Amino acid sequence: MQALKVAMLGCGVVGTEVAARIQNRAEGLAERIGAPLELSAIVVRDASKARPGIDEKLLTTDAEAAIAGADIVVELMGGIEPARSLITAALRQGSSVVTANKALLAASYGELMSAADAAGVRLEHEAAVAGAIPIIRPVGDSLAGDRIERIMGIVNGTTNYILDQMDSEGWDFQQALTAAQELGYAEADPTADIGGHDAAAKAAILSSLAFHAPVSIDDVHVEGIEGITAEMVETARDQGFVIKLLAVCERVASSPAGAGLSARVYPALLDRNHALSSVRGAFNAVFIEAEAAGELMFYGQGAGGAPTASAVLGDLVSVARRKVLGGRGQYERPFHEDYPILPISAITTRYHITLDVVDRPGVLAAVSEVFADEGASIELMRQTIGDIDDEGIQHAKLVLATHSNTDSTLQKTVDRLIDLPVVHTVKSVIRVEGQ
Amino acid sequence: MQALKVAMLGCGVVGTEVAARIQNRAEGLAERIGAPLELSAIVVRDASKARPGIDEKLLTTDAEAAIAGADIVVELMGGIEPARSLITAALRQGSSVVTANKALLAASYGELMSAADAAGVRLEHEAAVAGAIPIIRPVGDSLAGDRIERIMGIVNGTTNYILDQMDSEGWDFQQALTAAQELGYAEADPTADIGGHDAAAKAAILSSLAFHAPVSIDDVHVEGIEGITAEMVETARDQGFVIKLLAVCERVASSPAGAGLSARVYPALLDRNHALSSVRGAFNAVFIEAEAAGELMFYGQGAGGAPTASAVLGDLVSVARRKVLGGRGQYERPFHEDYPILPISAITTRYHITLDVVDRPGVLAAVSEVFADEGASIELMRQTIGDIDDEGIQHAKLVLATHSNTDSTLQKTVDRLIDLPVVHTVKSVIRVEGQ
Repeated sequence: MQALKVAMLGCGVVGTEVAARIQNRAEGLAERIGAPLELSAIVVRDASKARPGIDEKLLTTDAEAAIAGADIVVELMGGIEPARSLITAALRQGSSVVTANKALLAASYGELMSAADAAGVRLEHEAAVAGAIPIIRPVGDSLAGDRIERIMGIVNGTTNYILDQMDSEGWDFQQALTAAQELGYAEADPTADIGGHDAAAKAAILSSLAFHAPVSIDDVHVEGIEGITAEMVETARDQGFVIKLLAVCERVASSPAGAGLSARVYPALLDRNHALSSVRGAFNAVFIEAEAAGELMFYGQGAGGAPTASAVLGDLVSVARRKVLGGRGQYERPFHEDYPILPISAITTRYHITLDVVDRPGVLAAVSEVFADEGASIELMRQTIGDIDDEGIQHAKLVLATHSNTDSTLQKTVDRLIDLPVVHTVKSVIRVEGQ
Repeated sequence: MQALKVAMLGCGVVGTEVAARIQNRAEGLAERIGAPLELSAIVVRDASKARPGIDEKLLTTDAEAAIAGADIVVELMGGIEPARSLITAALRQGSSVVTANKALLAASYGELMSAADAAGVRLEHEAAVAGAIPIIRPVGDSLAGDRIERIMGIVNGTTNYILDQMDSEGWDFQQALTAAQELGYAEADPTADIGGHDAAAKAAILSSLAFHAPVSIDDVHVEGIEGITAEMVETARDQGFVIKLLAVCERVASSPAGAGLSARVYPALLDRNHALSSVRGAFNAVFIEAEAAGELMFYGQGAGGAPTASAVLGDLVSVARRKVLGGRGQYERPFHEDYPILPISAITTRYHITLDVVDRPGVLAAVSEVFADEGASIELMRQTIGDIDDEGIQHAKLVLATHSNTDSTLQKTVDRLIDLPVVHTVKSVIRVEGQ
């Protein structure tokens, strides 16, 4: 059978790996697909820059021409533009597209999927979430006859490495971040990772897919791990918890804002017996609760050239095989459901609050009264003796574990605690997930 | 769009759950598929027997007529015949088939997949391996551009429950088996589970899929857990291991029998730091090592009505959506590779051997000499004082950890150890996996 022409947009670490595998595994891939793949063009910004193992004749800066001559387009350039325009052009001309571009999908998932659907072709994106872990296909296809209630994911390896080192080695945040940068896990500007924005993009994609409703990154509530201190990690450990940066996507049956979806990213306490708590280092894992299937977990490497290339190639085989077999359109129908996205203020979780208080009778009563006033319920209070400060005043540490409260109730309560004369400072407020 | 007619063969626990979900989720399923599903017939042995929630008018004993009128056939009757003939008939008439029948697939995977391929339709079987855990699609599709080197699975919940209870509660085998039977995890005749035959069927299917080569259950070396004693579990724990019944499917680059595939099921020692060692109770998990993707793990419920129904429905949505979109044939090309299946004698693993020996100088030398003679290498020997027997003789317990040796070398070595005058008995021989 005639070769399928593949144009690749971008040729960084992942692209180089993908190109090498298309060449080195040509025979096996052709067998699986039923037709050979031919890398017809590699679009780069500077075609004069040598790339190891890449045939220089394939390099071009003319993306439009490369796309026009391709059966399948693999987009690995990243960022919103020109990726969006180029993908849209490829879909419109009837070429299926494979992309690893989470930023673009998190911004324009609905729009791009509709364009693929209208053109009767496919837009595959396994590599955009959790690297090599097959998660898009299980969520989109295998669970298509089930009802996903909740997804909790550790979907950013950098932050998981940092939090894991803080937990296992007792390092402080800065020390762990520096180590992550030295190992190449974190960028020189680590904002996208530690601020939770990378995880938020993945939460948007996972939510869209799991709930068949368009969720954009702007719908995702994001908090990063910059504020996590060694003391918070230690306090968590003492109580049988570990702090993880979680992407949570869930259906909420009832809330002060009604029923709807919630997508949020924040560091949270996770019971050490929870399956996700054992995810170490820079690994990723996605934990799913489905109505019929029950609890599922998928675990593996979330980043890196070879793992990401594995996901891209799986998608490439899939769209190529589809092209050989015929048949039009997306495999899964996108976005037939319409749910409101709930604001974080309406979301109910449990919290742990750590206060630095004065060490004298009546403190517990004063604190409890604020909670009672705001209608927030406390499950557990634990007071331990603290330090004596420079002025000779004895401090105490008060850890409060709340029952489930809405975020807005909790915020109001915390605001009032800050104003209490018996409270020196609110040292930390952290949610509890997975219970 | 016109409804797609679904005929269901068999209506036990899983079938009842599938039928209920087709009805209760009709609207959502129709949205996802792009056409409504209509349950057109349910084939049962005795149509007069009432089934809760099932429309009696759908019940029939005439399988041929039910299949003839169906767009899609869901086979949940189990066993080899008449399931094989009925599925073949359905494929030949151009209907796609969804099955959960691991016994049949393990016997005739190649034949059935070829029939589907020839007819240009699909044969889906996510529910046949590891229940609700999406494993067929990740292995067959997501990793289609990668190269799977090895799969290790805990794919039988009954035996994992038994071994987990022996490990965590210190129970003996019989006590754990009785508990498993009381909980409904084990059948009255538990042979298929504890003998490893159920796991072997799944190993055959996983191997076929992962290596694109037909592997039947007869190619799988099987050992059960009947011989696992409380003492073996305790000895394993003392050394940082846990005993798990593992299905191992791997490519072997070189062995005394050449290169090829190995598929085997046996209880083995697993390091407590290995991800699979944390799989508790009746849960299943599949651990994959792929060339580019690295290590992946999939975890969830391996059995039960609702989880299995989830997998069946995922497949049903998939083939129905495919029918709506058009296009012919299997998604993945089956069996383009041709590997020999290696005999267990050629497979290399590490072993732990526990001997009951006489307690006197020279024992270690005698035992070591047998190993040296057979070309088997010992990594570690640990001797501990044993009991004094009825005749007043002091015994010693000798645990030997070997380096990697072939199974045949090991067997010959053990046969000679049995004959040594200093050896009372060989108490256990168990392989080590996951290192």
